[in-house]
Amino acid sequence: MKKLIGAAILGQSGGPTSVINASAAGVFLEALEHEEITHVYGAKHGIKGILEEEFYDIGKEDLKELELLKTTPSSSIGSVRYKLKDITKDDSDYRRLLAVFKKYNIRYFFYNGGNDSMDTANKISKFFKEHDYECRVMGVPKTIDNDLYGTDHTPGYASAAKYVATTLMELYHDARVYDTPMCTIVEIMGRNAGWLTAAAQLAVLKGQGPDLIYLPEHVFDYDEFLDDVGTVLKENGKAIVAISEGLKDKDGKYIPEHFSDLSTDSFGHAQLGGAATILANEVAKKYDVKVRGIEFSLLQRSAQHLVSAVDVNEAFQAGKEAVKQALLGKTDYMIGFERVSNDPYKINYILIPLEKVANEEKKLPLEWIEPHGKGLKQPFIDYVLPLIQGDYKAPLEDGLPRFAKLKKVLAKK
Amino acid sequence: MKKLIGAAILGQSGGPTSVINASAAGVFLEALEHEEITHVYGAKHGIKGILEEEFYDIGKEDLKELELLKTTPSSSIGSVRYKLKDITKDDSDYRRLLAVFKKYNIRYFFYNGGNDSMDTANKISKFFKEHDYECRVMGVPKTIDNDLYGTDHTPGYASAAKYVATTLMELYHDARVYDTPMCTIVEIMGRNAGWLTAAAQLAVLKGQGPDLIYLPEHVFDYDEFLDDVGTVLKENGKAIVAISEGLKDKDGKYIPEHFSDLSTDSFGHAQLGGAATILANEVAKKYDVKVRGIEFSLLQRSAQHLVSAVDVNEAFQAGKEAVKQALLGKTDYMIGFERVSNDPYKINYILIPLEKVANEEKKLPLEWIEPHGKGLKQPFIDYVLPLIQGDYKAPLEDGLPRFAKLKKVLAKK
Repeated sequence: MKKLIGAAILGQSGGPTSVINASAAGVFLEALEHEEITHVYGAKHGIKGILEEEFYDIGKEDLKELELLKTTPSSSIGSVRYKLKDITKDDSDYRRLLAVFKKYNIRYFFYNGGNDSMDTANKISKFFKEHDYECRVMGVPKTIDNDLYGTDHTPGYASAAKYVATTLMELYHDARVYDTPMCTIVEIMGRNAGWLTAAAQLAVLKGQGPDLIYLPEHVFDYDEFLDDVGTVLKENGKAIVAISEGLKDKDGKYIPEHFSDLSTDSFGHAQLGGAATILANEVAKKYDVKVRGIEFSLLQRSAQHLVSAVDVNEAFQAGKEAVKQALLGKTDYMIGFERVSNDPYKINYILIPLEKVANEEKKLPLEWIEPHGKGLKQPFIDYVLPLIQGDYKAPLEDGLPRFAKLKKVLAKK
Repeated sequence: MKKLIGAAILGQSGGPTSVINASAAGVFLEALEHEEITHVYGAKHGIKGILEEEFYDIGKEDLKELELLKTTPSSSIGSVRYKLKDITKDDSDYRRLLAVFKKYNIRYFFYNGGNDSMDTANKISKFFKEHDYECRVMGVPKTIDNDLYGTDHTPGYASAAKYVATTLMELYHDARVYDTPMCTIVEIMGRNAGWLTAAAQLAVLKGQGPDLIYLPEHVFDYDEFLDDVGTVLKENGKAIVAISEGLKDKDGKYIPEHFSDLSTDSFGHAQLGGAATILANEVAKKYDVKVRGIEFSLLQRSAQHLVSAVDVNEAFQAGKEAVKQALLGKTDYMIGFERVSNDPYKINYILIPLEKVANEEKKLPLEWIEPHGKGLKQPFIDYVLPLIQGDYKAPLEDGLPRFAKLKKVLAKK
């Protein structure tokens, strides 16, 4: 195979996770080791940084700080939610990208994100091919939503799942401390798929979990919900409920939308959230109990202090694999995980065509879900338990995490 | 000194912390070692459990599980917010308590809580004395609010402070990830004193903290707040703001109260909370930015996975000291901490009269606070940094914390 000599660039895209920087560490540290790769760049805010020719020269960073990226949450070089223009109407974004890639002789493009990001990477790759520009394009998976096609799971999911389960166990102790009736409703991320909310079942497994778990895979019914909560309250005076932010009623409306007449502009600002408080208030209207709505919000995706060691290692390895495979001549693939065995837990790193990932979604199997509100079945536990094993905290300095500090030297234009 | 032979009882009272059970472990394990103490009881839901003659026989528990209490959050034997009846009008509660103490020959009473709890313990002790019932009454301090008189700090505070600082550092990375303007407002507990919100300064110290910190020690002004946020947004496009739930305007109104016309029954259910969302919406009205309100809610006081080792050890030791001092004949005191030196950090355990603790409050020194919004000065950092050192996580089982499982055998009536 002909060696392809040129620069490599990594972009981070979409909502951050606790381990997206671990993948960055994998890409950077691996890329820096190979002679074919002349320069290693990190795009500032993903694809936008490339369009604007703003990227960091990773060769100028200390190796120690790059290692610390493994335990630094969120996206250290900046993320983006930029959608490329529709190429059939306006190919200026694509032409601009090609010009920048040519100018810096970038021959390796790594994009770390979810399905939208894989779609972006795939489209860029096609355009480059049509214009005879050789560039190896590899996707590195990332999302707490765990909904990427073709891979057993995605980096970021396990750590978020561990956060959800651990924190729910702790809340269980807090929310049951008084001898008075109380209903606590906890809202968990996941707009379309219940993978993350399902992790609440792990706390149930430990006998310290929510009484009810509502996933977006089922239509949400307000009366049924209130009845369910009423039954639990009657039984033990306390109700802890885990809900997905993505719950929708039969009309397809999210919970904040359903109550929009009550909350006027309170939830007008785009992102979901607030459903826990809304439902808590509904419970308070119907039952004479103290209520509390809790939103895990950004905490669940940036809680580095509670990551899974399995997740960190896999995210790191996925980054390294992407580089290795690209150097072997592979292009237009996303790195994926194939589970070989559960006990001992073992995965293989596999290649999944970007095109597939861009257009399909991995759903939570409906047969793993109990009737609405009743949680998950054993196959889900078997699936998720191996993923949340082990700690991998950032080193402490003054009792606080020591996260990576990059110099972020911009490459000369 | 005459040996006092009889049973000992511990009650947990008020809002839980991550380490209140560590104090329980200290009391139980120490009490079980002494011959003078014939039985060791744990009151179910504090004083209420004594009134109702419901207490657990701690002698029936496995020592291993009692050890695990050190790393189990919240109040394992149940807490309470019961206020004893006013003795000048109705002494029935007191007479009932005396009868129960006599019936079980309880001669050692340990109460773990904040100032209200110390007040309760103090009143009971006085009543017992007036009725010639010899009983040694010792308070064990507890509160994330850090507002107890006479002690350098209180068990529970340091772990909550560590949670606040660590989580804000993580949020810093998440909230700055996009190249678009954004304002994130984080709400921290502390109804009257800013001790806990002040811990946000630790994240600032690490260069990864909020831009603005608002403490309840200063009157909150909405226009000033919006101007401050505007200035920060103009400077760097991102604003992260830490606020205390206890902020009050010049009319003495909490933030949710101030906007009660907008939120009708949304915040009608007693406890504070919601201020972050309210302020975030105010910011969104004035500036064209994405906003997010985040409430640390119960998470900040039950996050065992992020406790300070110093805190756990001190809470445990405070429980042991209470027992030792009572056996030495001391009564009507709360265990307190006196700081001997900061480097190396060293404290002495001291005795503080319950009466003092019941009636006074420890304020955050005003001279430690910068002008409103601008955070804390170095003396606060010097004060708090030694307290948050070290990890002390629960052992993991299946990747999740293994908390204590008590048998909770009720003592025979």
